[in-house]
Amino acid sequence: MATVAPSAWQTEPVPSDPRGWVDRAAEVAAVLSTDAAARDKAGATPYAEIQLLKDSGLVTLLGPVEHGGGGQHWPTAYRVVREVAKADGSIGQLLGYHYLWNWAARLVGTREQWELVEAEAARDRWFFGGAVNPRDNDVVVTEDGDDLVFTGRKSFSTGSKVSDVTVLEGVLEGTQTHVFAIVPSGSEGLTFHDDWDNIGQRLTESGTVTLDGVRTPWASAAGFVDRVFQPRVYNTLNVPTIQLVFVNLYLGIAAGALETAATYTRTRSRSWLHGGYDRAVDEPYVIDVYGDLTAKLWAAEALAEQVAQEGQKLHDDPDAVTERARGEFEVRVAAVKAVATDVALEVTSRIFEVTGARATAGAEGLDRFWRNVRTHTLHDPVAYKRREVGRLVLTGEIPEPTWYS
Amino acid sequence: MATVAPSAWQTEPVPSDPRGWVDRAAEVAAVLSTDAAARDKAGATPYAEIQLLKDSGLVTLLGPVEHGGGGQHWPTAYRVVREVAKADGSIGQLLGYHYLWNWAARLVGTREQWELVEAEAARDRWFFGGAVNPRDNDVVVTEDGDDLVFTGRKSFSTGSKVSDVTVLEGVLEGTQTHVFAIVPSGSEGLTFHDDWDNIGQRLTESGTVTLDGVRTPWASAAGFVDRVFQPRVYNTLNVPTIQLVFVNLYLGIAAGALETAATYTRTRSRSWLHGGYDRAVDEPYVIDVYGDLTAKLWAAEALAEQVAQEGQKLHDDPDAVTERARGEFEVRVAAVKAVATDVALEVTSRIFEVTGARATAGAEGLDRFWRNVRTHTLHDPVAYKRREVGRLVLTGEIPEPTWYS
Amino acid sequence: MATVAPSAWQTEPVPSDPRGWVDRAAEVAAVLSTDAAARDKAGATPYAEIQLLKDSGLVTLLGPVEHGGGGQHWPTAYRVVREVAKADGSIGQLLGYHYLWNWAARLVGTREQWELVEAEAARDRWFFGGAVNPRDNDVVVTEDGDDLVFTGRKSFSTGSKVSDVTVLEGVLEGTQTHVFAIVPSGSEGLTFHDDWDNIGQRLTESGTVTLDGVRTPWASAAGFVDRVFQPRVYNTLNVPTIQLVFVNLYLGIAAGALETAATYTRTRSRSWLHGGYDRAVDEPYVIDVYGDLTAKLWAAEALAEQVAQEGQKLHDDPDAVTERARGEFEVRVAAVKAVATDVALEVTSRIFEVTGARATAGAEGLDRFWRNVRTHTLHDPVAYKRREVGRLVLTGEIPEPTWYS
Amino acid sequence: MATVAPSAWQTEPVPSDPRGWVDRAAEVAAVLSTDAAARDKAGATPYAEIQLLKDSGLVTLLGPVEHGGGGQHWPTAYRVVREVAKADGSIGQLLGYHYLWNWAARLVGTREQWELVEAEAARDRWFFGGAVNPRDNDVVVTEDGDDLVFTGRKSFSTGSKVSDVTVLEGVLEGTQTHVFAIVPSGSEGLTFHDDWDNIGQRLTESGTVTLDGVRTPWASAAGFVDRVFQPRVYNTLNVPTIQLVFVNLYLGIAAGALETAATYTRTRSRSWLHGGYDRAVDEPYVIDVYGDLTAKLWAAEALAEQVAQEGQKLHDDPDAVTERARGEFEVRVAAVKAVATDVALEVTSRIFEVTGARATAGAEGLDRFWRNVRTHTLHDPVAYKRREVGRLVLTGEIPEPTWYS
Repeated sequence: MATVAPSAWQTEPVPSDPRGWVDRAAEVAAVLSTDAAARDKAGATPYAEIQLLKDSGLVTLLGPVEHGGGGQHWPTAYRVVREVAKADGSIGQLLGYHYLWNWAARLVGTREQWELVEAEAARDRWFFGGAVNPRDNDVVVTEDGDDLVFTGRKSFSTGSKVSDVTVLEGVLEGTQTHVFAIVPSGSEGLTFHDDWDNIGQRLTESGTVTLDGVRTPWASAAGFVDRVFQPRVYNTLNVPTIQLVFVNLYLGIAAGALETAATYTRTRSRSWLHGGYDRAVDEPYVIDVYGDLTAKLWAAEALAEQVAQEGQKLHDDPDAVTERARGEFEVRVAAVKAVATDVALEVTSRIFEVTGARATAGAEGLDRFWRNVRTHTLHDPVAYKRREVGRLVLTGEIPEPTWYS
Repeated sequence: MATVAPSAWQTEPVPSDPRGWVDRAAEVAAVLSTDAAARDKAGATPYAEIQLLKDSGLVTLLGPVEHGGGGQHWPTAYRVVREVAKADGSIGQLLGYHYLWNWAARLVGTREQWELVEAEAARDRWFFGGAVNPRDNDVVVTEDGDDLVFTGRKSFSTGSKVSDVTVLEGVLEGTQTHVFAIVPSGSEGLTFHDDWDNIGQRLTESGTVTLDGVRTPWASAAGFVDRVFQPRVYNTLNVPTIQLVFVNLYLGIAAGALETAATYTRTRSRSWLHGGYDRAVDEPYVIDVYGDLTAKLWAAEALAEQVAQEGQKLHDDPDAVTERARGEFEVRVAAVKAVATDVALEVTSRIFEVTGARATAGAEGLDRFWRNVRTHTLHDPVAYKRREVGRLVLTGEIPEPTWYS
Repeated sequence: MATVAPSAWQTEPVPSDPRGWVDRAAEVAAVLSTDAAARDKAGATPYAEIQLLKDSGLVTLLGPVEHGGGGQHWPTAYRVVREVAKADGSIGQLLGYHYLWNWAARLVGTREQWELVEAEAARDRWFFGGAVNPRDNDVVVTEDGDDLVFTGRKSFSTGSKVSDVTVLEGVLEGTQTHVFAIVPSGSEGLTFHDDWDNIGQRLTESGTVTLDGVRTPWASAAGFVDRVFQPRVYNTLNVPTIQLVFVNLYLGIAAGALETAATYTRTRSRSWLHGGYDRAVDEPYVIDVYGDLTAKLWAAEALAEQVAQEGQKLHDDPDAVTERARGEFEVRVAAVKAVATDVALEVTSRIFEVTGARATAGAEGLDRFWRNVRTHTLHDPVAYKRREVGRLVLTGEIPEPTWYS
Repeated sequence: MATVAPSAWQTEPVPSDPRGWVDRAAEVAAVLSTDAAARDKAGATPYAEIQLLKDSGLVTLLGPVEHGGGGQHWPTAYRVVREVAKADGSIGQLLGYHYLWNWAARLVGTREQWELVEAEAARDRWFFGGAVNPRDNDVVVTEDGDDLVFTGRKSFSTGSKVSDVTVLEGVLEGTQTHVFAIVPSGSEGLTFHDDWDNIGQRLTESGTVTLDGVRTPWASAAGFVDRVFQPRVYNTLNVPTIQLVFVNLYLGIAAGALETAATYTRTRSRSWLHGGYDRAVDEPYVIDVYGDLTAKLWAAEALAEQVAQEGQKLHDDPDAVTERARGEFEVRVAAVKAVATDVALEVTSRIFEVTGARATAGAEGLDRFWRNVRTHTLHDPVAYKRREVGRLVLTGEIPEPTWYS
């Protein structure tokens, strides 16, 4: 991968408006796309790619302006994830998760905590990883004086190895209380295993993490005041907020697949020898498939943007978030996740119909789009997303907040 | 149909903001829905329904405020069409076409012409019909001194019989030049035949019109100055503008179908006797279908709103509309039309799966949603919409403006 | 409708092989199709149509040769239902139900009983109806000396009014035991109400029946010996056997829709004026849709024929039918019902895409295919058919016999 | 891979009836499936796998009984391809192509030629490859005395490296005449390159072949008598015959995917933690997906079997094959290819929905099913298959025989 950042980044450290950020993301994507297929095959730890995210400033998009951050909002963050994911689904995922972990301080922590975290993160362009996989209650947190000690094991932790800091999550011994804390990724006792070898999202470093007595001060436990958690509805926005990251990840990968395929069809596909057309781009079925897939993708993108705006209204006034508002937002997110899953799977599988047999060459790597979407869309069953939507429509019921809804 | 307008309409003649207009439309829809199935069956000429559109003020939504109009923009008009179409697809279509014909003065006419038309139309709450079906060049326009004389026949003319004024369209004898003019619907020589008897949109009065020497002054020929047409790109926005009416019509009917079905399922469907659930709303497949259809519909609605906003930017500055901007807008409209067609057909057919066998009773009239969508979505082949989108994506080509693209 | 039977029927009273029967059915269909749309609209009681089924001999297809029946097997009966349903879904349903009710004697009755019934039915060309709708336990059977007395009400009873004999079903008072008996349709106390007015299958006379003390000898209670029911697994084949009637009904309607549409496209559809083709049949999207729908329909038909053959093996040796064999057959039937439902709904809705706007004229009646399929496919929820199939594949479980599985 | 053939193969060298052959194929599949995922990853030349096909006798299935062949017909060959492909798509393809190349002697050659080839092939259990890719006219055949000399290059030649004999194809210099000849795969001048590295069907050795003056006697040119080709319609059955191989390949891969997934779901998938079910196999959406996919697959399989039988009638009497019969058969094959393509892509992508996130582990290799189907279904555009079907239905037109229709 080209490791030299485009020179434009020198003159303007970070963009100043949403369009500038999306353009910056497109520049990052252009660098990533030069060898995306080869890097996917190699599956190497993406140190250089994360450096690119830092050099470009993308990691600070949501950070406070006064500390060098972009001061942007979630809708722009989502657009940026989509843009990066067009070129590289793995890096798009890493960036999206980073935004969430960085923001988690604000979702869960006290004002004092998150102001501190966001300042430092923006100033030093931290990259966040997370050893959080709440499905398994497999990390125990014990108290030791003023410290908390995390012990256990997490599967499917994303980005840890390439991160500066890691969000830990565990359950306080003898309680049902979950504790989140941000620790340096180089903390003693924190071991990232190189065991992520799945069919897609191969560079996300989503392997196992073991926590062998990782120590952090009680004061870093997000949202605790005097060792008691201060709950508010806003806490529970973590799920819809990250699920919208997923949505934009899928839509980005799908858009990347479609653009890559269109370029291939335009420049390299041959028209069918018995079809009566000189150019592949003039074949009616080819045009029809591109039209069909594009229209569906645009619809999903439009809903993603609409729902991102709805979410932003909640983020704008955290204390005003009611359970009902949270629930209806979650259902909207669920809906767009169902739609994005469908369209991304369809696009990434059908592009082959319109690129042709030679496009299955291993070196092209066109299957990575489908493998990436197929892998991540299983994060939690999309059937349960449809269930949330159906229930709201039928009975007005909103989903109870869990780690997945 | 209840012909007494809700009393709230007395105190506030027309609403003052988009939300107010959508609420007003919902009130109209509530009146229409009380006997929509029965009126569909009867197929009588919708005089009372049009009166309702006038009494509610909906007909003036786009008209100038200084003459009693609502001064709203197209995105609100589209939302209102959708709202009315939820209850009655035919009346939604009549209203949407009315908006277009009323606006046609501005699209095609000179400033002097459209200011006059809009003022009168708002003041007197005109309802517009159109004897325009450009597929058939079947109306000849001849000159007779200062007058134009229209002679011929139009099939598929919508709303004529219930209108106050009618937009005529024909070709100047011996030329390829189309002429549009607004004439009183009671003009001599203008005969509306009662021959619309199709499977859907049964109240739209879309029958044949004969023009037996309908006379109108040359000065009323829209966009002609000294008998020469003054073309500009903005003229050609008539097609994407009305096609967006179609889109919102389909989405409105689909939303109405889904709401009607959900009410039925909630209140009247029985759970399956071997399914193990007491209530139909708890059956997993029922919830899943509602979730699936709702998610798809929301995506189409989101794209419809996004594209409406894109169109409004063009309407905001008519003289700045370039061929490229017009072409890209047309392609966006084409995309949402393809999506809306698919989702509306799917929703209106699948609602039966989740309402059950008894919901096929003729008196319920639940099939009218599908019949309505099925009928109007054939206005022009959706395959050609996908073609427009596919070509843009593949080769950057924009569609040449025709009466359908 | 033409009531004069084709003269060929005079010379050969009933055909002698499967092909002959299918040809005979095609002749019947040809008569029915001449005014199918008009008869659907009128919704009159199909006396003439049933007479046609008798004149053609189709009603005796399964009957014993020695009594004038055709001596054919179920696969041929299904093919014949499909052929008739191509022209008229209602008459196809009436014929298919007739086959089942006629056969019910053999499924449930003693040898003595069914031999008697089949002989008389073939000789006199009886047409069977059924007052059987087991979902509602709403008919009580009481004993009165050597007689049984049926009292109650059945909804959704098919064909009763046009039948010669009717299968009654009820529950013996004070027990859970269902009793079936065949009685003359003109029996005292049996009243067929003219209240079937649904959106599809409008000529099936599937209205309400009231049983006001309908009396029949105990000896006519099917399958009872000394007033005790003699159960065997073969009894339970009634459900898969009639469900395969449904399957072939849907496939017949779909095939009829596709053929009717193809004729329309070939002879009356106009090519799109901006499409660049002179004939509608040369439009790529038109060809593609016909190819797609035909391929899907052929697959469903092939499975229907395969499953019919599997069923015939069971009918060939009734006493050898095991619960496992019955269960696996039921699941195969469930699978083809799911497939046939999907394809029939898709075909009957999409034919409009390739016939065009004028094909929505009410007089064409092209919507009757969709209305017919839509109505009958709700007989029992197709979701539960998929469930049967899924369970077999996942856990090897076969469905417990009910009135619907 | 286990290289020891099951001992049962010793006692009965080749089976004697279709069921025996399918069982034998299932035994081969059982061996192949033990390490199919690992072999797919490794991508090594499948010498051992081809030996297994020989040891099991499968390679002789179509061969003459008097020379040790199985004397079976194409429907059984197709079933066997499906069975093998369940475990390993590549080996299924190699076997299917082998059947076609072996049979090609009979399709194109004189009686004398094919009797000789089939006898030797059965006796010595030859494995056939083919350097035939007619899309590119890139091999020139020159005459040199009694010899023909092939010079050029073929891309996408399947199986060559692991074959005993190879079918060459080229165009006689200065003519439009194609020549086929069978030569030893070790012939001088014949070089198989190891350059097949595509996303699917990775073991098919479908790489490039160069022919550097490969010499074979004129007498081996299939179907030539006195150096003049003897055409008959039966020659042109090569295309539908191999296309049915493709169909059964796709269906086999899909069935293998579904079985593999069902085993995974049953034994390893976890139910959703917020779903309310203890076992994954009890989740309604899981059951529904399996039911849906199975039903669709069964329909495609039924059509594949029906069409195979229709083809067999043509093979039974080669000289009676008319252009019309050939054309209608080709269209039936086209239809089932379209259906099989759709269902195989859907099954192989959707199995992940019902196995879950952990099933994306690279070691499981569950993506190979989709990669295999995705790769081979691009052999020729499925859109042109639908076109063949659509044209027959609309205008009665049959496709002109080409190398692809």
